[in-house]
Amino acid sequence: MYEGAVQDLIDELGRLPGVGPKSAQRIAFHILNADPADVKRLADVLGRVKVEVRFCRTCFNIAESDECRVCRDARRGDDVICVVEEPKDVVAIERTREFRGKYHVLGGAINPLEGVGPDQLRIRELMTRLQSGLVKELILATDPNTEGEATATYLALLVKPMGLRVTRLASGLPVGGDLEYADEVTLGRAFSGRRALDI
Amino acid sequence: MYEGAVQDLIDELGRLPGVGPKSAQRIAFHILNADPADVKRLADVLGRVKVEVRFCRTCFNIAESDECRVCRDARRGDDVICVVEEPKDVVAIERTREFRGKYHVLGGAINPLEGVGPDQLRIRELMTRLQSGLVKELILATDPNTEGEATATYLALLVKPMGLRVTRLASGLPVGGDLEYADEVTLGRAFSGRRALDI
Repeated sequence: MYEGAVQDLIDELGRLPGVGPKSAQRIAFHILNADPADVKRLADVLGRVKVEVRFCRTCFNIAESDECRVCRDARRGDDVICVVEEPKDVVAIERTREFRGKYHVLGGAINPLEGVGPDQLRIRELMTRLQSGLVKELILATDPNTEGEATATYLALLVKPMGLRVTRLASGLPVGGDLEYADEVTLGRAFSGRRALDI
Repeated sequence: MYEGAVQDLIDELGRLPGVGPKSAQRIAFHILNADPADVKRLADVLGRVKVEVRFCRTCFNIAESDECRVCRDARRGDDVICVVEEPKDVVAIERTREFRGKYHVLGGAINPLEGVGPDQLRIRELMTRLQSGLVKELILATDPNTEGEATATYLALLVKPMGLRVTRLASGLPVGGDLEYADEVTLGRAFSGRRALDI
C-alpha cells in the first residue's frame, strides 16, 4: 500500500505481539513525524538489548552480567527458592517486598498443546540447584491457570523424594475485590483455604 | 524495575501511541526471545525510514523521491484535486479505485484546542497549486468529524472567489450497516442527501 520503507516499517511493527495492522500504521506514522533523536534511541536500544541482555546462569532471570541482581545479592537467603514461569513474574514478586530468597525462572509452563513439555523448561537446572542441600523450601509460584497448576503438580511430585518443604501461593479473593464478583472457582479456593483469625 | 537495556526498551516502546506499560513489557519480552535477525530488521527499518521517506513536494503525500507515486503518474488528471488530512487517507481512497485525479495532504485538520490553525496546515501550498488554473474541481475529503468539517468549511470559503467546483464526500449510512444502529446525525445526513433511484 505504501512506498518502500514505510510499508517495511508497518510490516515489521505488525509482527509484534498485540500490534494489529491499524496500530502498526498508527505507530509508523507517529515514527515518521517523531523527532529523529527519539527514533534513533528506539533503534539503538533494539540493537543493544539482544547483545547486552543475558539470562542469569543460576536462576535464568534477566541479567546484564553472568548473574542477575537477585542472585548477586548476598543479603538474600539460599534456603528458599521461588519457582516462576517468566522474568516478569520475578518483577511482580519483587514489587511486593515479601520475599527475601532466590528465584528460579522456568521459561514457561507445561503446555502439551503448544509442544512445551518438562524438557523445554529449566527443570533439570532446578534439580541441580536443589542437590546442594541448602534449600529448605521450594515455593511454586507458577500462574494459577491450567498450565501453571499442571507445572506445579509435576514439580511437587518430582521433588517429593528430596524431603523439602514444597508450598504454593495462596489462591483466594483479590484484596480490594468484591465477593459478589468473584468467580466460583476462586471463591471455592478462598473457602477451602480459610484461616483462623488471631484476635 | 528491570536491569539496564530491558528497562530502556520498555520505556522507549511505552512512548509509542497506543502502547501502554503492560503492552510495552509484553513486546519487550517478545523481542528478548525473538530471532536476532527479526529484531535487526526492525531496528534497521527504523533507521532507514527517517532517511528515505520524504514528503512529495507537490501534494505532501509520503514519497521516496521528490514526488509521490500519484503525482508521478502521467495517466492521472490534473483537473481534480482531492484534499485529505493525512497520507493514510490517500491510501484509503486509492483502495476504492474510484478516484483518478491528484491529492493534496494538509497534514491535519484545524483544531484550535490543539493549537492547529490554518497556518499549521499546507493550505498556502494548496492555494499556489490552484493558481495554475488547471484545476476544475476540489474534493474536500477531510474527516466527517468536527475538525474535518471546520477545515472543509474554511477551505470552501477560501476558494469560493476562484469559481471552481467544490465538493464534499457524501455522508450517509455505511454500506453493509444496519439502519437501526446508525446514529441520528448519520441517519439525518442520509435523509437530507437521499437520491432518486434511476429505475
